[in-house]
Amino acid sequence: MNGEDSLGSFGSPVLGRIRIVLSHPSHPGNIGAVARAMKTMGLERLYLVAPKLFPHAEADARASGATDVLAQAVVCATLEEALSGTVLTAALTARRRDLALPFRWARDAADELVSTAVAGEGADVALVFGNETAGLSNAELSRCHIPVMIPANPAYPSLNLGSAVQIMCYELRLAALSPGEPPSNEVNLATADEIEGFYAHLEEIAITSGYLKPASPKRLMLRLRRLFSRTRLEQEEVNILRGLLSAFRKSPSDDCNR
Amino acid sequence: MNGEDSLGSFGSPVLGRIRIVLSHPSHPGNIGAVARAMKTMGLERLYLVAPKLFPHAEADARASGATDVLAQAVVCATLEEALSGTVLTAALTARRRDLALPFRWARDAADELVSTAVAGEGADVALVFGNETAGLSNAELSRCHIPVMIPANPAYPSLNLGSAVQIMCYELRLAALSPGEPPSNEVNLATADEIEGFYAHLEEIAITSGYLKPASPKRLMLRLRRLFSRTRLEQEEVNILRGLLSAFRKSPSDDCNR
Repeated sequence: MNGEDSLGSFGSPVLGRIRIVLSHPSHPGNIGAVARAMKTMGLERLYLVAPKLFPHAEADARASGATDVLAQAVVCATLEEALSGTVLTAALTARRRDLALPFRWARDAADELVSTAVAGEGADVALVFGNETAGLSNAELSRCHIPVMIPANPAYPSLNLGSAVQIMCYELRLAALSPGEPPSNEVNLATADEIEGFYAHLEEIAITSGYLKPASPKRLMLRLRRLFSRTRLEQEEVNILRGLLSAFRKSPSDDCNR
Repeated sequence: MNGEDSLGSFGSPVLGRIRIVLSHPSHPGNIGAVARAMKTMGLERLYLVAPKLFPHAEADARASGATDVLAQAVVCATLEEALSGTVLTAALTARRRDLALPFRWARDAADELVSTAVAGEGADVALVFGNETAGLSNAELSRCHIPVMIPANPAYPSLNLGSAVQIMCYELRLAALSPGEPPSNEVNLATADEIEGFYAHLEEIAITSGYLKPASPKRLMLRLRRLFSRTRLEQEEVNILRGLLSAFRKSPSDDCNR
């Protein structure tokens, strides 16, 4: 189920050691949405405790391209069974409980699950989600080490099950894998002398056009430098701007005055 | 639509200045899921550019308790109209584009939107999401200042529209409002002398029970101290543990030996 090949394709062996456990899910559509949310973030190990309806066409439909996660989901009779072999268990809860362990916010819990999975040398960790309506029972919650909350609008903290799993898997992915620099297109930045050439050209055209008084050019040029300095001009852009300036100079109205 | 009263209930005037714009959404269910995702994170200003079906019963059903966000949604004919008056526009995109501006990851883009909304003194900022299948057109993307990507599994980056909005609104909430300490139950931690009293009691019982050899008690007691030091013992817990120790001493087998 989670051999090296399969894990390799998800980019992180750590993510392959995290079980997402749904306890008593009522709606097969939600199970599908959870599978999709997991796979988008590189998680694949879904455990279902006593699902009301599974497998189900609606689960497959909502899973979209993540039906493989559903196909390899492990259906268990009890939460105990789903947690067998795990060394750390976190459980999402939307409300404070009496006698609960100290709560963690989503981000901190994700960090702790990932660092335990790293330190655990092959042992699994688990993140448990309760039933859509009732949440987790106190007995279920008492089997888990870390109660987790997602920071939410106190007036309406009602996240959909798939959305809660999506946020947690997003945080788990960020905890496991630095995303690095965002993708960028190749750019050739203009050099300082190319940019100075552009400013000289611009000032000359501003003077010959009559917009800029040669006696007090400084403030206008400072403002224009301020504008262009906020971006990083590319060589191609400097060429376009200087081409435009040259075209302005040769404009028909100018020709008439010669 | 976003008067002080309404903003107040969401906990942050900054979140009230962020427009979530859906361009050409195809499925009314997704519009409902977006409204729910927004409201869970305290956002309420939904703009819909040329939605295929809206209003719609399926949108209301998926919105669950967030039908108020749908009721006050602004339907526009064009993206230009939805962005009118905004001072910064970010746009979610799943793929790299030619001639795109530098990309930002979700978290950094959320920080930038929030800090611009704070600095903007009342001006709106916007976050734009494209059609479920086609995404944003290049013309639409060129109207936006920041292309945003959510770090995802490169083998399956296909986030559902509602899920993408959920993650972005979660990041916007965290950028706008520090969640503070996670909720905690009141606990009365045991004092150092109470804990020392427990260790003395434990050592005494360990010796009288014959488990611990009085000649070399140190290593066992060090291990037991190590165990209990990893948690923060509460007064009530020390009382329970000492009660258990006292009960063990008075156990029937012990009585028989007297």
